[in-house]
Amino acid sequence: MSLQDLLKNHVRHGALSVRLPGGARLELGDGTGPRIAASLTDPLWCARVAARPALAAGEAYMAGALTVEEGGLYALMDLMARSFPVAKPAGGALGRWWLDRRMQANSRRASRRNVAHHYDLSTDFYRRFLDEDMQYSCAYFARPEMTLEEAQAAKKRHIAAKLRLEPGQRVLDIGCGWGGLALSLASYCPVDVDGVTLSQEQLALARARAADARMEEHVRFFLTDYRDVRGRYDRIVSVGMFEHVGRPNYQAYFDAVAAHLADDGVAVIHSIGRSDGPDVTQPWIAKYIFPGGYIPALSEVLPAVERAGLVVADIEILRLHYAETLKRWRARFMARRAEIARLYDERFCRMWEFYLVVSELAFRVRGHMVFQLQLARRGEAVPLTRDYIAEAERALEAPRRIAA
Amino acid sequence: MSLQDLLKNHVRHGALSVRLPGGARLELGDGTGPRIAASLTDPLWCARVAARPALAAGEAYMAGALTVEEGGLYALMDLMARSFPVAKPAGGALGRWWLDRRMQANSRRASRRNVAHHYDLSTDFYRRFLDEDMQYSCAYFARPEMTLEEAQAAKKRHIAAKLRLEPGQRVLDIGCGWGGLALSLASYCPVDVDGVTLSQEQLALARARAADARMEEHVRFFLTDYRDVRGRYDRIVSVGMFEHVGRPNYQAYFDAVAAHLADDGVAVIHSIGRSDGPDVTQPWIAKYIFPGGYIPALSEVLPAVERAGLVVADIEILRLHYAETLKRWRARFMARRAEIARLYDERFCRMWEFYLVVSELAFRVRGHMVFQLQLARRGEAVPLTRDYIAEAERALEAPRRIAA
Repeated sequence: MSLQDLLKNHVRHGALSVRLPGGARLELGDGTGPRIAASLTDPLWCARVAARPALAAGEAYMAGALTVEEGGLYALMDLMARSFPVAKPAGGALGRWWLDRRMQANSRRASRRNVAHHYDLSTDFYRRFLDEDMQYSCAYFARPEMTLEEAQAAKKRHIAAKLRLEPGQRVLDIGCGWGGLALSLASYCPVDVDGVTLSQEQLALARARAADARMEEHVRFFLTDYRDVRGRYDRIVSVGMFEHVGRPNYQAYFDAVAAHLADDGVAVIHSIGRSDGPDVTQPWIAKYIFPGGYIPALSEVLPAVERAGLVVADIEILRLHYAETLKRWRARFMARRAEIARLYDERFCRMWEFYLVVSELAFRVRGHMVFQLQLARRGEAVPLTRDYIAEAERALEAPRRIAA
Repeated sequence: MSLQDLLKNHVRHGALSVRLPGGARLELGDGTGPRIAASLTDPLWCARVAARPALAAGEAYMAGALTVEEGGLYALMDLMARSFPVAKPAGGALGRWWLDRRMQANSRRASRRNVAHHYDLSTDFYRRFLDEDMQYSCAYFARPEMTLEEAQAAKKRHIAAKLRLEPGQRVLDIGCGWGGLALSLASYCPVDVDGVTLSQEQLALARARAADARMEEHVRFFLTDYRDVRGRYDRIVSVGMFEHVGRPNYQAYFDAVAAHLADDGVAVIHSIGRSDGPDVTQPWIAKYIFPGGYIPALSEVLPAVERAGLVVADIEILRLHYAETLKRWRARFMARRAEIARLYDERFCRMWEFYLVVSELAFRVRGHMVFQLQLARRGEAVPLTRDYIAEAERALEAPRRIAA
């Protein structure tokens, strides 16, 4: 089907004007809402997008072949997300199994390469759009009016409250990023934190921050795969890392959590999830942003949790928090786009803009969410009711308020 | 293996003395803890218990062949639960599938028969050990010192808070019992509640209570299978009913929830769950207490939720709340045992005592729990954070406190 016919068949709402090869303008939708004008005049790109829109739309944008003259990329992709139903790939469970083997096997070596692809981008780049603590995961808007900085701090307190930290405990942070969470946990309560990452850039900054804070004896960072961790920990936390594990390794992941968690231990796993059951990774994301990555449905996570002998203590679902986080990241990114283009190039900027846009839409339109899975080896590891979470958060927030 | 050898091989702790055929006393365990003395002197019963302990131990107790002279039945079964590992039946997924078809097919007719088996016991009987509102499901001990009455009231408020009731809404209660929850919801907020049950006894009392409270125009009860409900509801609640659905019907159950839930609706499903993954129903329970019943692992529930197109808004896990509830039911039951024996007979009393004991132990020793699954058709149906739950509970509790 030609791109023209594809768009005509699907775009029923909105007001979209597309300039196609030859300069003809295609007017689409029912005329409601703000006008969006886009252009894709190269016949070869038109054919590619028509054949495989999920991959080629992003590629056309990266190449500068697809441009948005009016309304902005977010509005265009929002209309596309609402117009095109999610097409689950054919092949069912067997097809997914085969794709998993090919795309998400994630050996130690592949994992290191995949992590480097994204997280070894220069620290200078991430500093330009993340909060000051460099939290590169979903913030927690405990109150809607919170700034990004406040919501990221609230996220760390929310997780700390669920971890029920006590002085002297040993904490493992799987996928520690630039060290912000590990350092914060040790500042909330005198605990010893070991953070592991596969990113050289993250390791270097995390260690430097620990040294600057004179906490290097209590907060240590290592370039270590989760499968190679040793020892037992009272608490295990893992934020925004499970997305990189890949379906074939879920059992290995939760077996590792169970093996390294003390008998009365508590673990909090924070990950993006999908609401609509098993699927495959969006092909443009898999190729350009997160090779080896996969966003799981809860139904794919829980079998591995149960087989690992872990008990579920709580599952919280955060829905629009990540959409709000991504919106703020994109605003900061766009405000410093010229600087970033000098650091990398124009294609890189377009790629990141596209990534931030479609990720936000995944949460607003496609039912993506974040789940915080609180796990233990024994049910008695957490109190009888969840009230302690809010109480602990208030206690962690109070001194900061007084200091401010 | 003889019963003697079986006990010798497994009972390593505690102080258990068993009188066996011929009058010989077998002394078991390491002598720690309070002494338990039991007797099973009939050789035929010994052989049965040795061959199939999970079924025959309860049968021996019902028949009066197994007696406990010292320490009590709870202590005996506690020691057994800790001494004997859970033996998952052979056959794996295929074996379970076959058992499911045979035991949990639960057609409409079988469901009615299974429900009648347990819930059509006389209302007079249930009155003797339940709280005054006749809540026959896990209470919520919001504060540990709560009485059973208070904790059952707290459970209703906790569920109401998650339902986010608003005046004028239509509420469906699937498995409404004797009507207590439906009447309470309508007393918290002016909503119209339809409750469905398959028990004639429950229906009669629920309708009488609605009439007594002059609420029969707003709180109506029907003898209806969940598969035969019609219409759409703003809120759906189902407490302690999902345990009767049976694994082969999970998809039908959640498809029904999805079909009858309004677009911005919220559903709360409260059910017992197991922590250790798929299993089969304990054979004594399946034969004598809950024919057709099955306690699911979360990994068995979520695939059906996702396929039904429902989104998970929250999953709360309540662990020892049901153990505490069962402990209180058993204390009340035992205090009025003589009356109940006159209502039924001695064998019935022994059967119920055994059921209440092993159920409490399932929560204390075997990792059973209660999950409250909050579902919606759209993520926006619930607020951004869970704080509203505690706030709504406090608001519901406040006027009652002032009135008291």
